[in-house]
Amino acid sequence: MAGSDGLAARLLEGDKRALARAISLVEDDDPAGWELVREVYPHTGKASVIGFTGPPGSGKSTLISALTRARREAGRSVGVLSIDPSSPFTQGALLGDRIRLSEHFLDAEVFIRSMANRGALGGLSEAALQAALLMDASGKQDVFVETVGVGQAEVDVIDHADTVVLVLMPGSGDSIQALKAGVMEIPDVMVINKADHPLTDTMIREIRGVLSLAPQRGWRVPIVKTEAIRGEGIDPLVERLDEHRDYIVAEGTLSERRRRNLRNEVLALAGARLRRRLEEQLSEDPEFARLLDAVVERKLDPASAASSILERAVADESSR
Amino acid sequence: MAGSDGLAARLLEGDKRALARAISLVEDDDPAGWELVREVYPHTGKASVIGFTGPPGSGKSTLISALTRARREAGRSVGVLSIDPSSPFTQGALLGDRIRLSEHFLDAEVFIRSMANRGALGGLSEAALQAALLMDASGKQDVFVETVGVGQAEVDVIDHADTVVLVLMPGSGDSIQALKAGVMEIPDVMVINKADHPLTDTMIREIRGVLSLAPQRGWRVPIVKTEAIRGEGIDPLVERLDEHRDYIVAEGTLSERRRRNLRNEVLALAGARLRRRLEEQLSEDPEFARLLDAVVERKLDPASAASSILERAVADESSR
Repeated sequence: MAGSDGLAARLLEGDKRALARAISLVEDDDPAGWELVREVYPHTGKASVIGFTGPPGSGKSTLISALTRARREAGRSVGVLSIDPSSPFTQGALLGDRIRLSEHFLDAEVFIRSMANRGALGGLSEAALQAALLMDASGKQDVFVETVGVGQAEVDVIDHADTVVLVLMPGSGDSIQALKAGVMEIPDVMVINKADHPLTDTMIREIRGVLSLAPQRGWRVPIVKTEAIRGEGIDPLVERLDEHRDYIVAEGTLSERRRRNLRNEVLALAGARLRRRLEEQLSEDPEFARLLDAVVERKLDPASAASSILERAVADESSR
Repeated sequence: MAGSDGLAARLLEGDKRALARAISLVEDDDPAGWELVREVYPHTGKASVIGFTGPPGSGKSTLISALTRARREAGRSVGVLSIDPSSPFTQGALLGDRIRLSEHFLDAEVFIRSMANRGALGGLSEAALQAALLMDASGKQDVFVETVGVGQAEVDVIDHADTVVLVLMPGSGDSIQALKAGVMEIPDVMVINKADHPLTDTMIREIRGVLSLAPQRGWRVPIVKTEAIRGEGIDPLVERLDEHRDYIVAEGTLSERRRRNLRNEVLALAGARLRRRLEEQLSEDPEFARLLDAVVERKLDPASAASSILERAVADESSR
């Protein structure tokens, strides 16, 4: 544990390479990574965590790059975590995002990391939440988490942010419909990026209509027009983000939100581990293959098969 | 069990009220519902299950209504299952869908059901899969399952269909971007509904571009233009659906797909039950509240808290 101790100390001092190494450990599900999070956890909770969600192509990475510039000019240090669930057949998205952030690569006070692991069940959101904690522990004052709003893992991650920003562009008809139908959650701040498009104002009217139907809970969701690629609208966006932060601190919703999120994180970690144990047990169990054959032959229904394997798993667990 | 036996017999005879009652039992997580699925499961596997996904507003319900009419004219019986995850603050979507299907309400050979339960964890997809099995057992030859493509529960359900249809409309820019980035799966059949819009052909060109990038796996994904509200394009769509069915039967991918889906269903049921047991145990456990307080106070990290509660849960389980 001597090596791990040294890593924790360097991480807490803000060492960039120590942070990179630490995140790789949690991404690889290495026990040393979890041990490290355990050690540095008392030093977390200071960063302002902002989640950015929205369809691919809406310009989230460009927007985050512009916000990073603004935060650096204000003397703050920044961590950026991009969750990229794109399939193996298109590597373009990930590479493109990194290029958009490249102006910050040499800045010692900016740390950028992409995670694309689709491997372990629930693995991506678990690892991403730990990575955000590690950035926080290493002293990053702002942590920007970016995901496309598709899939439960990404929704889980974004739910853990203090402030959620939805980034749309003119043409984001499906997202507007999803907000209208109530299948997508109303964010804290809305951004219309690529706002030089002639349909921007029509879109803003549609969004106003949707927001007027949502229940009012004290915070009025602002709509900010940006052209991130030219840096336009970034200052007003920074102001709205700061206002939201001040609001949740003043109202006490920040600590409420964090308590709820930490509860969900503990349950999600426990649930993912339970399921992983179950899958490991089953992969070696000839009885599972036999039960599955019976289900495929329509001799045994799926729920009864699930009950049988649960009983076996519990018996197996308690005889360990 | 006498009552339940009678219900199973009536369900297998195609009695509409017995089917409605049976689905309510699984939706309520009533043990009698699971018992019923167990009894009738040997009579399932005959229906052709087609899943329809796509953004809210793309006209899935209208399309399914038109397809139901076509299937009834061909003398087939139809079950329709709509999964509606819209939030409590907008009840519009659900009600609208039912109105679009209303012409079939009095037809004894058509059974329509909406499910909107957001309650129990994993409950919606579990219950929906059982409901589809019950429709199959009651002799419905075509089962149409409709979801908006948002959220893991809906994706899980649609994955269990034999054929997956993605329904878009002109303006579905976000969905095109998601397909392009590889974060949304390529379906078996694509429909552009509301195809009287001037931007339809531009959209079809974009989709062709996306499809040309995807790996070719023998089946060429057809793009069908429809105006479901006027019944246009429905016959060509029926032909494409039948061709896909013939293809997966001839290639053996139907049985492969069903085996994989049944495996996932058994694992998902087992996983959901494990997690539910854990949540039940925790809700009564003062130690969990104590652990959570320590996490909130940054004295104990989330992963260590998860490990502690897992150990307690397993000990609790084996001492039952």
